[in-house]
Amino acid sequence: MSKKNRLTYLPLGGAGEIGMNCYVYGYGPKGRERFIIVDLGVTFPDMDTTPGVDLILPDIAWIEERKDRLDAIFITHAHEDHIGAIGHLWGRLGAPIFARAFTAHIARLKFEEHGLDELAIRTVDAWPETVAAGPFSVGFVPVSHSIPESSALVIDAPAGRIVHTGDFKLDETPGVGEPFDPALWAEIARPGVKALVCDSTNVFSPHPGRSEASVGPAIAELVANAPGMVVATTFASNIARVRTLAEAGRAAGRSVVLLGRAMRRMITAGVEVGILTDFPPTISPESATQIPRENLMLLSTGSQGERRAATAQLSRGKYLGLTLKEGDLFLFSSKTIPGNEKSVGRIVNAFSEMGVDVVDDHTDKYHVSGHANRPDLARMHQILKPQFLVPMHGEHRHLREHVKLGAESGLHGVIAPNGVMLDLSGNRPEVAEYVETGRTYLDGRVQIGALDGVVRDRIRMALNGHVIVTLIVENDEPLGDAWCEIMGLPETGLSRAPLVEVLEQDATQFLMRADRKTLKDDDRLEEAIRRLVRKSAQNEIGKKPEVTVVISRLTG
Amino acid sequence: MSKKNRLTYLPLGGAGEIGMNCYVYGYGPKGRERFIIVDLGVTFPDMDTTPGVDLILPDIAWIEERKDRLDAIFITHAHEDHIGAIGHLWGRLGAPIFARAFTAHIARLKFEEHGLDELAIRTVDAWPETVAAGPFSVGFVPVSHSIPESSALVIDAPAGRIVHTGDFKLDETPGVGEPFDPALWAEIARPGVKALVCDSTNVFSPHPGRSEASVGPAIAELVANAPGMVVATTFASNIARVRTLAEAGRAAGRSVVLLGRAMRRMITAGVEVGILTDFPPTISPESATQIPRENLMLLSTGSQGERRAATAQLSRGKYLGLTLKEGDLFLFSSKTIPGNEKSVGRIVNAFSEMGVDVVDDHTDKYHVSGHANRPDLARMHQILKPQFLVPMHGEHRHLREHVKLGAESGLHGVIAPNGVMLDLSGNRPEVAEYVETGRTYLDGRVQIGALDGVVRDRIRMALNGHVIVTLIVENDEPLGDAWCEIMGLPETGLSRAPLVEVLEQDATQFLMRADRKTLKDDDRLEEAIRRLVRKSAQNEIGKKPEVTVVISRLTG
Repeated sequence: MSKKNRLTYLPLGGAGEIGMNCYVYGYGPKGRERFIIVDLGVTFPDMDTTPGVDLILPDIAWIEERKDRLDAIFITHAHEDHIGAIGHLWGRLGAPIFARAFTAHIARLKFEEHGLDELAIRTVDAWPETVAAGPFSVGFVPVSHSIPESSALVIDAPAGRIVHTGDFKLDETPGVGEPFDPALWAEIARPGVKALVCDSTNVFSPHPGRSEASVGPAIAELVANAPGMVVATTFASNIARVRTLAEAGRAAGRSVVLLGRAMRRMITAGVEVGILTDFPPTISPESATQIPRENLMLLSTGSQGERRAATAQLSRGKYLGLTLKEGDLFLFSSKTIPGNEKSVGRIVNAFSEMGVDVVDDHTDKYHVSGHANRPDLARMHQILKPQFLVPMHGEHRHLREHVKLGAESGLHGVIAPNGVMLDLSGNRPEVAEYVETGRTYLDGRVQIGALDGVVRDRIRMALNGHVIVTLIVENDEPLGDAWCEIMGLPETGLSRAPLVEVLEQDATQFLMRADRKTLKDDDRLEEAIRRLVRKSAQNEIGKKPEVTVVISRLTG
Repeated sequence: MSKKNRLTYLPLGGAGEIGMNCYVYGYGPKGRERFIIVDLGVTFPDMDTTPGVDLILPDIAWIEERKDRLDAIFITHAHEDHIGAIGHLWGRLGAPIFARAFTAHIARLKFEEHGLDELAIRTVDAWPETVAAGPFSVGFVPVSHSIPESSALVIDAPAGRIVHTGDFKLDETPGVGEPFDPALWAEIARPGVKALVCDSTNVFSPHPGRSEASVGPAIAELVANAPGMVVATTFASNIARVRTLAEAGRAAGRSVVLLGRAMRRMITAGVEVGILTDFPPTISPESATQIPRENLMLLSTGSQGERRAATAQLSRGKYLGLTLKEGDLFLFSSKTIPGNEKSVGRIVNAFSEMGVDVVDDHTDKYHVSGHANRPDLARMHQILKPQFLVPMHGEHRHLREHVKLGAESGLHGVIAPNGVMLDLSGNRPEVAEYVETGRTYLDGRVQIGALDGVVRDRIRMALNGHVIVTLIVENDEPLGDAWCEIMGLPETGLSRAPLVEVLEQDATQFLMRADRKTLKDDDRLEEAIRRLVRKSAQNEIGKKPEVTVVISRLTG
């Protein structure tokens, strides 16, 4: 076994997708490296690919097998796609979790919900404070994003310095948190940066990103001129934005109301941690019903159209006694994440039917992104001048474009999607290993593998419907007719006879003629009946359903 | 019964949604009106709301009940959301279908597929030719859109003139078809327009629309500079665009290949109808494999990520022997329709993994919309100066915004979503009636109602999984244990025992203790077992599945 130390990077999630961030760094001789994890996030299911699933977690089997060599877990910020899996997966890893105060606060709330030991969560101050974790020294450098206390990590190993940006943008007036400080970054770059592991989300956005401060005046004007009630939605964790919205309400003489659990929870967290000292006073939804609507400013959860959030409930008619009507204004101070267009659209149309004026993201006036755009990424490249660029947090097309962007200023970039372990020790990053990675589904209270076939069967039932055929066989002879039940299939087909009757007749006819060899053998009988029923359904309704055959054997 | 003639407008589809256009106009005394239909389109299913469904058709029950008074069906253009239902629904209506040559050609192909009588389809020349249909006189006025021979309809009734725009844009250099002619429109407006029934799709697009001619030079430059193979996708029916792409290929010395059935079919239709006289020569995909890749320009179907189209097949590796590789270029000369982002994204990422450069719609350089933008709509309002504005072809938010836009130039607009019948006879449009409307699903070869519960059951199985419980009851006593099968559920739950065993034990225990009254009554027994199994599953896996209980009764 080689004794040569190597510095490795392995994405288990987040590289080849936007969401579910989870990166492993290693240092030491092959097979004896010490490890740290950066972020342990989730991604969200959808009806197309993961119906019925509650949450999608990274498959951490690889690092779990090596958990005796795992020294620490670092969380860059408190967005679900970076922190969301800690409650579900920490029990299988056990290493201490390091984060800044706001992030650690959210982490503790999650641990509390899961009945885990909160002592595992350690609060760290910002850079220049560092944490020693095995061979690594790790510091949290404040960056701007759309949640408080987001951080890039400076990861120092004997083989060199890595800057892992986390999610970031360059904002000199971020509202909450530290402004972008080029001098600080220049100082971090001074000893030389081996690898810049860099957010790629907005690499296709050609213009420099705008500051959080730029939306304030537009929002204030909109709210001031609104004749009726104003409701605004944004991500609750975007505390700077929530405060901007609340202040616009206060400036217009409106009482501010927080709607939705996440909204109250995040604002409370900000106050408890001490980063939110000047949030306007709020009143309860109950008191709000006593106030004239033109004096109200509601801030509600559910900017992505989430069915159970306050916004969706308002669009269906009522939330905690509050209703919208003709002349009210609803503001989406948010961007619709690709894939959520239809659910957001349903809400906008429901408000439109009520006569509510909806201001959504087709203008850019009331929202700015939390990610660095293309020119901002280029600026970060130039400040840090890394030996290599490793794009992360992006689909493959983003990673690829980010490598191209780096090449424009002479950087050597490398695409390493989930499961590709890079050796960063040498002069050029090399692929050290291909690791099997994947996704784990949280389904109800059970974790299932993405390839277990459970979700595949659900999708098949949804596309094809389900026929259940029940047979009773006594002493290898059919007892009575076959019995069919259908779910998710039309009651009648082309012949106009009930579909179940057609299927039962065909199955029974088959049974009566079946030879003893088939009748004796469950597998053979099942397979024959399945084929027959699928064919019979194909003739009758033009589609082949899923078929479950239940054979009950009686021995007389 | 009133003898007063009235002029009515009733959307059965397309008003309150984008797609599935179907509008009914009536004239005559209430209960004795004569009718015409404008457009008979479809919309497309999705996994969220309509899993397994093949196509969504308007519910035409209302007009079917009055088909003895239906004089004609007019089709404005050959896009599926205007023409797609004729093959499926014409048999229930039976009135002659009128369309311009290209549209009629496509209509005949559909009739042929469905074995319907093509004589029902009548080709009409453009305005000033008109068709007399009962009390109506209808003319096809050429408009620009993204398919040849799109038309607005001038519908003259004794109560006044209606202009029904169909889908349109204002384009003075459309490539294929007649340029926008303000003088012609002014002439149509001269006698006075009672109602402008107007496309609303792009009412939120603030800038004037760009001409089809504007994309040509950009595409030509892109193709000329591409080092490897070039593949471009767009809607096959956008013949002007397909020709622009093909010409860019020819200009760059490349052989042009059409990939996908729709691509060949549309180009053939254009040639047969005589509107496409100068399409560059094409070669077959088989010959293309013999030509150096830098000399090829492929035009492929599937710009919306459709799984079985040529583009998706190329992204999965191979289509008719053709493969893409590092250095090739793939151009989306199209806009991704909301809801298709994820399927298009999958394709872009697959190409990215191959090293192919993908140019997609995040720039506007290589695509223009086929719909009139906000200022173009305003221009149309001003030219036609209608007595009322009736926005159509839009979600509720579009209709609402379009009424607002009309109000800016003093027009009286009215929102009439699907099922709202307007009486246009008076000085102000009035709601005459609310008609029950809806959607019909084509599922395999069967038409089912949207509210039949079939699709609801599929969605439930997809979200919750399905448990089948089989019981045998002999002389009102359980015979043996309950038997469970699961589909779409995890094999083991929190107790680590197989889920089916846990459910079977619980169900069997219940059976053994059940009173005779329950055992005698199928409904009661079924309901009790269903509840028990759902509760048992909730404890074990944290979710409540769908449960089908099959009771076989033996009498000894």
